[in-house]
Amino acid sequence: MKRFDLKYYVDGLKAQNNVILAQAITLVESKRVEDQKMADQLLNEVIQDSTPSIRVGITGTPGVGKSSFIEGFGTYLIDQGKKVAVLAIDPSSQRTGGSILGDKTRMETLSRHPMAYIRPSASGNTLGGVNNRTREAVLLCEVAGFDAIIVETVGVGQSETLVNNMVDFFLLMIQPGSGDDLQGIKKGIMEMAHGIVINKADGDQAKLARQSKKDLLSALHLFAASETGWSTQVELCSALEKTGFESVWQMIASFQKEMISNGLFYQNRSDQNLTWFEDRVNFGILQQLADQPHLKALRQELELKVKQNELSVSKATIEMLDRVKQLLA
Amino acid sequence: MKRFDLKYYVDGLKAQNNVILAQAITLVESKRVEDQKMADQLLNEVIQDSTPSIRVGITGTPGVGKSSFIEGFGTYLIDQGKKVAVLAIDPSSQRTGGSILGDKTRMETLSRHPMAYIRPSASGNTLGGVNNRTREAVLLCEVAGFDAIIVETVGVGQSETLVNNMVDFFLLMIQPGSGDDLQGIKKGIMEMAHGIVINKADGDQAKLARQSKKDLLSALHLFAASETGWSTQVELCSALEKTGFESVWQMIASFQKEMISNGLFYQNRSDQNLTWFEDRVNFGILQQLADQPHLKALRQELELKVKQNELSVSKATIEMLDRVKQLLA
Repeated sequence: MKRFDLKYYVDGLKAQNNVILAQAITLVESKRVEDQKMADQLLNEVIQDSTPSIRVGITGTPGVGKSSFIEGFGTYLIDQGKKVAVLAIDPSSQRTGGSILGDKTRMETLSRHPMAYIRPSASGNTLGGVNNRTREAVLLCEVAGFDAIIVETVGVGQSETLVNNMVDFFLLMIQPGSGDDLQGIKKGIMEMAHGIVINKADGDQAKLARQSKKDLLSALHLFAASETGWSTQVELCSALEKTGFESVWQMIASFQKEMISNGLFYQNRSDQNLTWFEDRVNFGILQQLADQPHLKALRQELELKVKQNELSVSKATIEMLDRVKQLLA
Repeated sequence: MKRFDLKYYVDGLKAQNNVILAQAITLVESKRVEDQKMADQLLNEVIQDSTPSIRVGITGTPGVGKSSFIEGFGTYLIDQGKKVAVLAIDPSSQRTGGSILGDKTRMETLSRHPMAYIRPSASGNTLGGVNNRTREAVLLCEVAGFDAIIVETVGVGQSETLVNNMVDFFLLMIQPGSGDDLQGIKKGIMEMAHGIVINKADGDQAKLARQSKKDLLSALHLFAASETGWSTQVELCSALEKTGFESVWQMIASFQKEMISNGLFYQNRSDQNLTWFEDRVNFGILQQLADQPHLKALRQELELKVKQNELSVSKATIEMLDRVKQLLA
């Protein structure tokens, strides 16, 4: 990885140079302690808290049509005068490169558009998964002039919580289905979602989609009202026929308007900053301790013994943590 | 939480007392530093590496019928003379308690059976998600005499990697679908899976299920052979009609037989131990540093400033990590 000085990144981002944006994200994703520190200096230098942007998280099971939706919806947003960045988190990609890396090809129109920026975000699993840097990528995109940031994630689980902690609006995408299928949507995700979009509301499935919307809305009634006063909306769309983008955007825009007026919009971003701080510090701590010479040597020794079945994991853990304790005493 | 001495847990586990097993898992899940140390002592005392058990991970999107399958399959295994433990990881459960906590009710027959033990496993998200203790729960169940351990997880993503790192056999459950739907299965998960079970192969869907099996098998042909020499198998079953359990079990049993004979079975468990050691150490480090008085005070101070927007996250991170560095110097 090629490295530059702070000024290079700062100037490049402010000049809305997408090549330098990509380089800055690469810096932020680097696992080297020095790169991490420089990344923090860069972020501290460029981030303005008052960025007038909207950050939208999109989740849904594989096959529901997220990529096609983002392709169409992103183009719609560009037509409305926005600059659109798409960041994709694929927690299962570490082994195979995953399907999201293919998104650039799948989002063909969008990826070629000068007002769009698409980047898969390696989530990795090292150090307990705390090294995801999508949040930083979101902020850098904003500095580089993007005002609609879409964070895509696959699947149901930890990555949703991760994304929910870095976006303003969380959107769950599903396909038309019977009541039984809808019951399969995890309650936790449903409660997290500010909006649910039923994709593939076209052709033979249009009627089922309308029924699904009704079913969902009555299911949503069972939930207690959110503390924010916002009730989860349900919209239909067809990425195939390019319909419904406007109502999805209206939903997001009215959410943003409402949250800004009641003060919760920036309150939420501020709360997210705290989580971000925790993640950064935890990652940095693990990184520093991994580099500490005495600990590193002991760790390697214990790893070898565990590997050769000479020592139980539990005993090795006790020994390692006792050493950490001494070091901190 | 009520605490006992080491001997109480050791004796209780060896006596195959399920109440004490539950208490031991609770001890292991505790976040207190002292409890963690005692848990490590307990594990070191009771774990035998040569446990003759099979650990099966089961994943699949919500609604695919995992619980009904486990209910039926678990009962089948008990009929074969096994003692069955079911541990469920639900990464999205932290907010609502999730649906898996309802599994005891959904697995009615199994949960009442004296040869079965069912326990949801809170995954939580603190300290970067590294505090999952399902692996320890698996081992404790084995000490308490359970020889078929099923680890269930929901969704696609990090929890799969987590589970894959603690089981011998990883099973992906899907429902009958067209080729399009099958394309939705993440390649990463498909490659991880030792076996794929198509559930709901009954009634109207029986034919589609057979077609899905054919489609899947030809898709699987595209993958390079696994290093273990095992090719992913596909089996049909119907949890509803209680069919297919035997072929699923045959698949798992022949995998185990093959891996034991080529030496990879215990090799894999040994590799998993290394990952386990890393996770335990990382968690313990974060825990100790969170408790370190000077760091704790600074952290609280910085958190307050971040919360009140007096300090950027990046600047706070730099300050915090510089202090950690001084402490380690």
